[in-house]
Amino acid sequence: MDVRAAVAVAAGKPLEVTTVQLEGPRDGEVLVEIKATGVCHTDEFTLSGADPEGLFPAILGHEGAGVVVDIGKGVTSVKKGDHVIPLYTPECRQCPSCLSRKTNLCTAIRATQGQGLMPDGTSRFSIGGKPVHHYMGTSTFANYTVLPEIAVAKIREDAPFDKVCYIGCGVTTGIGAVINTAKVEQGAKAIVFGLGGIGLNVLQGLRLAGADMIIGVDINNDRKAWGERFGMTHFVNPKDLGKDLVPHLVDMTKLGADQIGGADYTFDCTGNVTVMRQALEACHRGWGQSIVIGVAPAGAEIATRPFQLVTGRVWKGTAFGGARGRTDVPKIVDWYMQGKIQIDPMITHVMPLAEINNAFELMKRGESIRGVVTF
Amino acid sequence: MDVRAAVAVAAGKPLEVTTVQLEGPRDGEVLVEIKATGVCHTDEFTLSGADPEGLFPAILGHEGAGVVVDIGKGVTSVKKGDHVIPLYTPECRQCPSCLSRKTNLCTAIRATQGQGLMPDGTSRFSIGGKPVHHYMGTSTFANYTVLPEIAVAKIREDAPFDKVCYIGCGVTTGIGAVINTAKVEQGAKAIVFGLGGIGLNVLQGLRLAGADMIIGVDINNDRKAWGERFGMTHFVNPKDLGKDLVPHLVDMTKLGADQIGGADYTFDCTGNVTVMRQALEACHRGWGQSIVIGVAPAGAEIATRPFQLVTGRVWKGTAFGGARGRTDVPKIVDWYMQGKIQIDPMITHVMPLAEINNAFELMKRGESIRGVVTF
Repeated sequence: MDVRAAVAVAAGKPLEVTTVQLEGPRDGEVLVEIKATGVCHTDEFTLSGADPEGLFPAILGHEGAGVVVDIGKGVTSVKKGDHVIPLYTPECRQCPSCLSRKTNLCTAIRATQGQGLMPDGTSRFSIGGKPVHHYMGTSTFANYTVLPEIAVAKIREDAPFDKVCYIGCGVTTGIGAVINTAKVEQGAKAIVFGLGGIGLNVLQGLRLAGADMIIGVDINNDRKAWGERFGMTHFVNPKDLGKDLVPHLVDMTKLGADQIGGADYTFDCTGNVTVMRQALEACHRGWGQSIVIGVAPAGAEIATRPFQLVTGRVWKGTAFGGARGRTDVPKIVDWYMQGKIQIDPMITHVMPLAEINNAFELMKRGESIRGVVTF
Repeated sequence: MDVRAAVAVAAGKPLEVTTVQLEGPRDGEVLVEIKATGVCHTDEFTLSGADPEGLFPAILGHEGAGVVVDIGKGVTSVKKGDHVIPLYTPECRQCPSCLSRKTNLCTAIRATQGQGLMPDGTSRFSIGGKPVHHYMGTSTFANYTVLPEIAVAKIREDAPFDKVCYIGCGVTTGIGAVINTAKVEQGAKAIVFGLGGIGLNVLQGLRLAGADMIIGVDINNDRKAWGERFGMTHFVNPKDLGKDLVPHLVDMTKLGADQIGGADYTFDCTGNVTVMRQALEACHRGWGQSIVIGVAPAGAEIATRPFQLVTGRVWKGTAFGGARGRTDVPKIVDWYMQGKIQIDPMITHVMPLAEINNAFELMKRGESIRGVVTF
């Protein structure tokens, strides 16, 4: 079938909105009509050429929502008409990772997904008979896409596509980092580095978890008001500080009898390895945990003195907020529908597919929190 | 009073065994007759001058056992005649750290201990009226020493001093890293880097915790037989391997349905930052935890790609095995007395104080596991 898609033809070039051929679902696959998709920094990272594993041509996009319109043989967990969110982290419930109960990083289709292919080693997308790569197993920058059954989360039908698509990445990553990875407890002190589309969701995750002190750090002063809308209690702009950031943050967190200072939990949402180190070193001696969320440039390394770890700080990371897609994503959709979490104000720009390159520009200039394309 | 002590007069010089003056215990302090003390790499690290916080002259030693012979005013938790193990990590049970229930790193006397002084800011040791520094709050290279009450663990009286002194550091650090810090579960796969006085205790901790696969890594082939005595199931000498260590270890741990590989837990007992990185990267994707135990040279830094953390590996450290001294050390003494853990075979050399420099030489040459001085 012919579909409308934004094609990443080569690194560093704008997306080309054009007609692409899409083959129907094979065994264990589903055809989904995408109704809306967010545009995320990870798409921009790949499009820019900075991602060493980026493949071209490809249909990017990994933050969508839509409706199942066809299913392949053997598909049992969803049917035509079901509303779904595509999952770049699938959940097969059968691989050693899923069965470990220790990670959400399902390995069932990892190898082919990394090669931009469906699990059988082929692509469903093509232009003039030449294959076009899938991306992150989702390729939501198209009005139709094909996904493995294990890579869609069935959600309630009253949830608006143009809002819950954001749960496909940013919302779940931010909130999940707090509740699944860090397991933040009531009364905790936390610091969030980078108040963009992920960081704001970390803030609302911290509010949900009952953190008492929620410090936001960003070099853009406009983000102070944004942070305050989602639970931030203190804002620090390192550029305006006039002194070293880490000792300042440690001092801010010295409260009551605690004269050591440091946060119980810190979150890097920047992808900058220097910030990642600051986030670790702003943790409390003895128990502070720092969670890396941001994606660093190819080859970049984090470093610290091992003394930081020996004296009790913990360095960890999270992917898709530690969430199991088919199990946890429908719950987060429920939380949104119940008003437990907010999404609407973070979606600052909505546009048709034809204007998708504008969403990338707004994001790069820091003018959007989240741009969403509707079909 | 006059005491016999081995004095570290200056960095890089042998200890001088001589007579030192020791003042009696002040408020909240106890006088302990040291009956035996182990000689640990950390003493050697400081004596060599590599420790930037090392102070001279000082009475080194932090792995002792002895008897309380006098108590200062206000001391209530121990009395004359009690058998005790000095604690370089005290346990006041009142500071924010002790009350956090998240760390063993009591901060009650941290500042003065780091300055080589008792909590009131003075030293009890002197030579010819000139103060000599305490070391790690313990100074066990003397037949008598003064300690804060919160820095002694009361132990059972039938435990032999020349064996349980080792619980004052090496045994507790190794076993504690497994059970308190990593919380290793039955059936786990683990890798221990460095099979010295700490590493062998990590091995027996892993056996105690029920780990199924316990890989030891050391560049000294003599340590294969040593490791096997304490639970090691596989030995790897990186020098004999002829290929990269990390992929080899990951391959070794690919078992059954798991074709990803990597250890559930790894432990660095070397202090070498390159090995620390290997230990992290040999962890299983999704959940592997690496525990830094070794003390690195001044200024040395650990590094890795943040992708290692984002894909689920956790980097942490441990000091004194995460053990609370007054609470946990007596239990470990019980375990030794019950035969649940072994100590005797690891104590390869016993000598009088006059020969203490020989213990340092044996250790530096890798010829001893643990040398113990008896008084």
